[in-house]
Amino acid sequence: MALMNENYLNLAGSYLFAEINRKVGAYLKSNPGADIIRLGIGDVTQPLAPAVVEAMVSASREMGSKDGFHGYGPEQGYEFLRSAIAEYDYRKRGIAVADDEIFVSDGSKSDVANFQELFSGDCSVAITDPVYPVYLDTNIMAGRSGVMNNGRYEKIVYLKCTAENGFIPAIPDCHVDMIYLCSPNNPTGTVLNREQLTRWVEYALAEKAVILFDSAYEAYIADADLPRSIYEIPGAEKVAVEFRSFSKTAGFTGTRCAYTVIPHTVMVSDGNGGLHELNQLWLRRQTTKFNGVPYVIQRAAAAVYSDEGRRQIKEQVAYYMENAAIIRNGLESMGWELYGGKNAPYIWLKLPEGELSMNFFDRLLTKAGVVGTPGVGFGPCGEGCFRLTAFGERNRTIEAIERIKLNM
Amino acid sequence: MALMNENYLNLAGSYLFAEINRKVGAYLKSNPGADIIRLGIGDVTQPLAPAVVEAMVSASREMGSKDGFHGYGPEQGYEFLRSAIAEYDYRKRGIAVADDEIFVSDGSKSDVANFQELFSGDCSVAITDPVYPVYLDTNIMAGRSGVMNNGRYEKIVYLKCTAENGFIPAIPDCHVDMIYLCSPNNPTGTVLNREQLTRWVEYALAEKAVILFDSAYEAYIADADLPRSIYEIPGAEKVAVEFRSFSKTAGFTGTRCAYTVIPHTVMVSDGNGGLHELNQLWLRRQTTKFNGVPYVIQRAAAAVYSDEGRRQIKEQVAYYMENAAIIRNGLESMGWELYGGKNAPYIWLKLPEGELSMNFFDRLLTKAGVVGTPGVGFGPCGEGCFRLTAFGERNRTIEAIERIKLNM
Repeated sequence: MALMNENYLNLAGSYLFAEINRKVGAYLKSNPGADIIRLGIGDVTQPLAPAVVEAMVSASREMGSKDGFHGYGPEQGYEFLRSAIAEYDYRKRGIAVADDEIFVSDGSKSDVANFQELFSGDCSVAITDPVYPVYLDTNIMAGRSGVMNNGRYEKIVYLKCTAENGFIPAIPDCHVDMIYLCSPNNPTGTVLNREQLTRWVEYALAEKAVILFDSAYEAYIADADLPRSIYEIPGAEKVAVEFRSFSKTAGFTGTRCAYTVIPHTVMVSDGNGGLHELNQLWLRRQTTKFNGVPYVIQRAAAAVYSDEGRRQIKEQVAYYMENAAIIRNGLESMGWELYGGKNAPYIWLKLPEGELSMNFFDRLLTKAGVVGTPGVGFGPCGEGCFRLTAFGERNRTIEAIERIKLNM
Repeated sequence: MALMNENYLNLAGSYLFAEINRKVGAYLKSNPGADIIRLGIGDVTQPLAPAVVEAMVSASREMGSKDGFHGYGPEQGYEFLRSAIAEYDYRKRGIAVADDEIFVSDGSKSDVANFQELFSGDCSVAITDPVYPVYLDTNIMAGRSGVMNNGRYEKIVYLKCTAENGFIPAIPDCHVDMIYLCSPNNPTGTVLNREQLTRWVEYALAEKAVILFDSAYEAYIADADLPRSIYEIPGAEKVAVEFRSFSKTAGFTGTRCAYTVIPHTVMVSDGNGGLHELNQLWLRRQTTKFNGVPYVIQRAAAAVYSDEGRRQIKEQVAYYMENAAIIRNGLESMGWELYGGKNAPYIWLKLPEGELSMNFFDRLLTKAGVVGTPGVGFGPCGEGCFRLTAFGERNRTIEAIERIKLNM
């Protein structure tokens, strides 16, 4: 019989999230009609901006007309979108990125997941703990993890993030080839500052490693002195690939558009020491395995950069950040220890010493009727922590905090 | 330095298509204003059906409203679309396919390209020659090809399709684990009949192989006795995965929606003889590496199954098939030997003995101002053949044939 990719056998089951669903279901069953507020999932709730909707409607009509119809587009995205991205998100902010260093895709999840294909199966991988599970799971599927021993994959280098280091990963004391960094961070809401990010770039330059930099939450950075792109750090253009998304910036979680920046100067080597551009390898990967983002969706994404679009999107981000402030201020006033929520849409609670995150989940659900995410779902170092998100509706977010204040 | 996936070094450059572009450019330069008719690329030209456009417009407006907004959807597709597909494309045709055996995606190219990830790197692969290049290239990238010797990858089993066997692949005389079949075929336009397809299913059952069946052009089958789905063959539900697309069925090449059917009964094994459903492995793959198709696009695809949609789509396919008949009849009246164009949108010319396909390309371009695709671009056995497509506009297709009759 055809043999499967046995690396899949190394994947850990996602028992935790199944367990969460079971618990919520059981609670609803024994409390019929209970009004649960969900601050667990990282999904937006506000409608698409009017400029985006109008662009999508207009492009749909175009597609129904003889002259406006678009068939296959370029796999890497239409020039109108690539140039708007490079211009507004980089060049106007003083960062030199060429249009052909932008690759438009259907999502940062896809890009972050597929990008590892360009590397040898023998490359070593560093991830933070806690972590967005996609970085880890896709490397397990590709055979870079080895098997699990005592909750750890033997070949993965884990960068522990705990209250002791303020949930900021330390530089590893060994060589690694591929480093996944996420800033603003999911789940901890922490942001790498210029100095911290500079140390990572210096490490990558010294070790000839590649940083896979996920900045899907970049729009939530308010402090002017925090880097929004890794390319603000000198030398990063030689070692870093940056993943960005319209999902959280413009509410595109169900609309699906993202992009990846790959400077021509980021190289990998073949076994004979020959150098190859990751940009060209990804172009080859995408032209072979992908057929581009729908025309109407690319028009919708381009509308984000119109005068109207930029203003509307800014309001949306401000709305969620006001939610974050409500959560943060409310919980801080109770004396709770928390991280994030200032330049990130995630609020990361450090639970009282000794409390397990699943226990806090139960307390929060049964006492306040609020659902969040137990930190242990993001890795062993997430134990004792808990994630809330700012993506809810305003009234529900306010009510959640009132309930927590009243009942917890 | 981080090591690349060295399998990429085994990919052959796509010199032929670059060469074609160069030739067309040179022709236009020396014949300024020349009116070239392109019957080369397999891309549609007719606008989206009105029912599809209206669904997309309406869904776009929904996304801009508080109550109609949709964030993340299920990675495998919304139930409304999965059930419409299973019902109209299978159950109403007497084929038992469950909703959860349908996986909605952004394109058959993506699915066909990514599906091989579920198999061991040691699995053996059979492809036809000539072939849609994605089947081969993605297996090269995954390390299943070995290196190229004399125009052939050493580990690939090639199924020769020539005029001698009517461009119908013969069953291999050795074991293979994964078999790519495409019917109606791109590029040859031939269709596997019930008897031929039955032999493939029997082979796969006997060898415990998996057939990766690409039926992206299924809508072009007019003969009632030709199978439109591999699941019309008894036993196929144990050995076959079927790839379908809205691209050619409903003009979605720039709208991006497709689906893959994976019966729960198709199994692969692990090294210890344990059995695993491909359905569940793909679910795990998609939930980890993909975030679903845009809501507005899934609504557009669902409109294909409305009464209006079904009627409009049928007209579109009939339009292209009328083009195919015009090409076929025109060229047959000149005594040319050709295949396909009857239950497929591709017309495959067998060139006069000894003529190279690139030479015919030159003749067709310079004498008739018509561009097609040299068969050698699809594999060594495509040499001496040439592909024309029925996806052009009516007037241009008629004119192309008139020019060929007049000048060739």
